[in-house]
Amino acid sequence: MYQLYVDFMSQPSRALMILCRLNAASMGQALEEKRVLIHKKEHRTDEYKELNPLRQVPCLVKRGAGQSVDFRLPESCAILRHLCERFSLSDWYPSAGGVEQLEKQAYVDSALHWYHSTLRKGCGGLTFHKVVAMNLGVQPNEAIAVDCKAVLDRALGTMERVWLKDRSFVGGSRPCVADLLFCCELEQLNMFYAPVDGMDFDSIMGPFPEVRAWMARVAEATSPVYEEVHKFLRFASKMRHEKLSKVPAKL
Amino acid sequence: MYQLYVDFMSQPSRALMILCRLNAASMGQALEEKRVLIHKKEHRTDEYKELNPLRQVPCLVKRGAGQSVDFRLPESCAILRHLCERFSLSDWYPSAGGVEQLEKQAYVDSALHWYHSTLRKGCGGLTFHKVVAMNLGVQPNEAIAVDCKAVLDRALGTMERVWLKDRSFVGGSRPCVADLLFCCELEQLNMFYAPVDGMDFDSIMGPFPEVRAWMARVAEATSPVYEEVHKFLRFASKMRHEKLSKVPAKL
Repeated sequence: MYQLYVDFMSQPSRALMILCRLNAASMGQALEEKRVLIHKKEHRTDEYKELNPLRQVPCLVKRGAGQSVDFRLPESCAILRHLCERFSLSDWYPSAGGVEQLEKQAYVDSALHWYHSTLRKGCGGLTFHKVVAMNLGVQPNEAIAVDCKAVLDRALGTMERVWLKDRSFVGGSRPCVADLLFCCELEQLNMFYAPVDGMDFDSIMGPFPEVRAWMARVAEATSPVYEEVHKFLRFASKMRHEKLSKVPAKL
Repeated sequence: MYQLYVDFMSQPSRALMILCRLNAASMGQALEEKRVLIHKKEHRTDEYKELNPLRQVPCLVKRGAGQSVDFRLPESCAILRHLCERFSLSDWYPSAGGVEQLEKQAYVDSALHWYHSTLRKGCGGLTFHKVVAMNLGVQPNEAIAVDCKAVLDRALGTMERVWLKDRSFVGGSRPCVADLLFCCELEQLNMFYAPVDGMDFDSIMGPFPEVRAWMARVAEATSPVYEEVHKFLRFASKMRHEKLSKVPAKL
């Protein structure tokens, strides 16, 4: 029996939830979602640290007899691949086999590894310094935010120029795990409120219409689960916009 | 026939060169190293962009009849795994098999994915803003350098607390591909010159004696190839130190 520790406000958690909910039958209902609320610092408790010494969300745990922990796995990309191989979800990650299959796997791996220093660094870093930091009582750093915005813009350009060139999805004619990961990362930009943050989803995505069209395709291909796991983010975004619209905009 | 495009001043390139040189016999001499000099911007040429649209070094290329490109793979971590699986280098990356083997693979994958936003971001970012930027005529950003130093310190702490806890190597009793990757990343800190940079390899590693001892073990386990691929870095470090020792230290 597997337990997947996730938070709706964590981008990679949402990617994993989409994969698992869409494939619950193929996985023999062997996986249970467990909530870890990051804003309540539940990932910093001793109990969670036992499960994931890296103290990150998400995390996969396999329990055996008497609920003993038989295997635990941090890092969302490693979890995405492992679940696909463990439960033969070859629509989402190429199955093992000869050299040709190894090469197909390696292609998806390269997309998953590319993500960290590009989309994740840019989008996650920008959101942290523009939106999240002040909620945590951390001083946002404008120089880092500017750097992250440049990283994000380059990453979105690379998506159009490389990963989505001549193909509907990173995975080809249908989405793979990298599509889920990338798309869920970018969704957090909906938190931005232009009059205060100086940018929002529309302005950031403006120069990248192909990325935007691809996001719509990913959402459609994984409907209605996609909207299900983004419901809380939509609500949080709406609340933030409403709250900020009542304070005077920056001069 | 495979070609591996590498630069001695690229950390992941060195990790890949160590793997390939140590296993040249197992790989049937089927891999040739090709030099791409980043400081001469050879990775920005149209010719290289054809091989790797991401314009990164390293990159793996498989050529067929008439030197046609049959397969190309960017991203060092994806290349490390792919070469191990393609040439059955199970000492360096666990071989495929049942659930137990999948879990061993997933463990190494989690280390490879962990690397990007921690060791790579911290060590690579710090080196860029302290050492590399001024050589490229780019204005170093002190705020980002400070952030990267904090990321690096946390990553080194995590190495001692998690990845090297109760084990000689990340891979267990012997090094795996993650050991090569992590160790080659940290070697670049030898470029630092304390009187000018305010820190150097010794001062950064001071609080992390277990990481330092592990680096010595990795170097020993992969000798003499380890020193071979770091020869140019040692030379560049020595040149930089000598040059900087002739300019007045910062007040």
